[in-house]
Amino acid sequence: MANDSQIVDVITSLYHIPLPEVMGDAKHGMHTHFDVPIVKVIVQDGRQGIGYTYTGGLGGRAIASLIEHDLRPFLLGQDASCVESLWDAMQWKIHYIGRGGLASFAISAVDIALWDLRAKKADEPLWKLLGGADNSVKAYAGAIDLNFPLEKLLQNNRTYLERGFRAVKIKLGQERLEEDIERIAAVRELIGPDVDLMVDANMKWSVATAITAAKRMKPYNVLWLEEPTIPEDYDGYLRISERGGIPIAAGENYRTIYEFACAMTRGKIDFPQPDASNIGGITGWLKVAHLAQTYNLPVCSHGMQELHVSLLSAMPNGAYLEVHSFPIDAYTTRPLVLQDGRAVAPNVTGTGVEFRWDLLEPFEQSR
Amino acid sequence: MANDSQIVDVITSLYHIPLPEVMGDAKHGMHTHFDVPIVKVIVQDGRQGIGYTYTGGLGGRAIASLIEHDLRPFLLGQDASCVESLWDAMQWKIHYIGRGGLASFAISAVDIALWDLRAKKADEPLWKLLGGADNSVKAYAGAIDLNFPLEKLLQNNRTYLERGFRAVKIKLGQERLEEDIERIAAVRELIGPDVDLMVDANMKWSVATAITAAKRMKPYNVLWLEEPTIPEDYDGYLRISERGGIPIAAGENYRTIYEFACAMTRGKIDFPQPDASNIGGITGWLKVAHLAQTYNLPVCSHGMQELHVSLLSAMPNGAYLEVHSFPIDAYTTRPLVLQDGRAVAPNVTGTGVEFRWDLLEPFEQSR
Repeated sequence: MANDSQIVDVITSLYHIPLPEVMGDAKHGMHTHFDVPIVKVIVQDGRQGIGYTYTGGLGGRAIASLIEHDLRPFLLGQDASCVESLWDAMQWKIHYIGRGGLASFAISAVDIALWDLRAKKADEPLWKLLGGADNSVKAYAGAIDLNFPLEKLLQNNRTYLERGFRAVKIKLGQERLEEDIERIAAVRELIGPDVDLMVDANMKWSVATAITAAKRMKPYNVLWLEEPTIPEDYDGYLRISERGGIPIAAGENYRTIYEFACAMTRGKIDFPQPDASNIGGITGWLKVAHLAQTYNLPVCSHGMQELHVSLLSAMPNGAYLEVHSFPIDAYTTRPLVLQDGRAVAPNVTGTGVEFRWDLLEPFEQSR
Repeated sequence: MANDSQIVDVITSLYHIPLPEVMGDAKHGMHTHFDVPIVKVIVQDGRQGIGYTYTGGLGGRAIASLIEHDLRPFLLGQDASCVESLWDAMQWKIHYIGRGGLASFAISAVDIALWDLRAKKADEPLWKLLGGADNSVKAYAGAIDLNFPLEKLLQNNRTYLERGFRAVKIKLGQERLEEDIERIAAVRELIGPDVDLMVDANMKWSVATAITAAKRMKPYNVLWLEEPTIPEDYDGYLRISERGGIPIAAGENYRTIYEFACAMTRGKIDFPQPDASNIGGITGWLKVAHLAQTYNLPVCSHGMQELHVSLLSAMPNGAYLEVHSFPIDAYTTRPLVLQDGRAVAPNVTGTGVEFRWDLLEPFEQSR
């Protein structure tokens, strides 16, 4: 029997896209570009699945190389329908240089393309195919705003409120902790008591500083403190939440389901934030979401809102969608749809993320 | 003041070297080649440091890309003398696509080059520069021999004894556990009671199977069982050693010092085996070795014997050098020196690993 879903080609392209302005946070330094490696998986009957990943401007070429030279030869001839099995097989195929890290970005891009194919074949939008708990999820906006002067920070958050957001996040990690607290106080005053406020230290602090900071921000009703210190310090996360009296969010820097398991069981984090662009695509993201549900936790997301809106909407424990400041909306056919502070999942078959190739083309990298 | 140690160039080359025969183990599949990305770091006064890493044939291009496009621009102009500080800075520079995984291979290659420069400037051989506990370390030989028929397995181990080894390791993970046990019994009979015997399951088993296997191999005095299951299952490693009554070795698949800390504190492994080619070079390897000493554990190594011989010799807790079957000796100026079952560290300044470029050249990859 001919198999319509047999993979006949895997085509990788890389886009290095300038940001409208340079943005900074506590530990990633200054961002000038973001990298988007895109993968097209083509199957026997001509259908195409589109997958992709992101970086903050570094490593895009290495990710594209891994897909092209190491994953593609393995994928050719495989049955694209068996998505989860291919996920496992990809992990093992490149495990020696994998087991998390950069390889997870490469696997993510391929996996998302496979899910796009699956949803298109099933003729379903992703939010339904994954369970359909809802077709929308609460969204929050945040910029990489550590280097914004206070007035600009406030103006930026004013814009979020005007756009309809009912939750916002700011970056912490100024030279003086006092300045962080002042910024939190000013934003809380701006947004009023009913809008959710999250804060993100991007791993800047020691455990001791994080505990002090957490105590200092108590008057301002902060919903979560994100990545107060390096995410591998699971015991440290637990100490910060216990002694600082604040819920902890983390996930954008975990690249394996095992790290998430440690963060939930040992670190006792409150808001796991898997990112399908770096945790192994939709398959990896779902494993973390199910793990979170099992541990009685909500699931959130990091970046990639145009895809995560469908994943979070689908989940019974979907909580908060991060709307990231990389301007991906400028390069897709469907910018974010917000209603009453909630992001609405696209209702088209496939992942619902369709690129405007004409706009991407000027930023394609020859390799 | 002009700085003689300022980095003026970083040159990367990639070699894809065929193995003399195809070799297999339980989870890496069949090996036909190994990849060796090599980095030359050149400083202001003309000195050159040579660093390198390995893979089992996949990912070499991605590693070379990461060094060339993402690390090199950062390294140019830096002071090569500040090795540990550059290690930290490299980790943070590429952390979003890093934090272990493939990025650790790239950082390893650069770090080894920096240590080569440091040892050359100090006019010391590495084993002295790192402490000089001894100039030799006990060595064991092992092949990727899972697919060897029993007769060939025995013949191979006979060769090791003839070459002077007093410790050997074989691969486990046959279809039938009984066959693994038969192979252990046959090798133990061949080598006699006084030669150390280690076994390596390459992550093939469940925890339950590993416990059964450990109990079955008790009569044969196995020194350690290596990677019985996936190394992220720290609790599983502890159960296997407690219930199976066998010491556990692991390390070749940890890419961060944090994973090693979990393996030692939570997994209670007995023989940590860091590999300087994938744990972040000599700097990363030393951090693990010191951690091991702190936890009253010996330190061993995985692969890269031509370099690890100097690292293990230097350490007060250096225990066993793995002599791997990738034929690197054919491409360096100094093949392994064995005396009374111990590998002797080279006594020349620098890392003591000098490549024969003429022999490598036919395997260089254009990129």
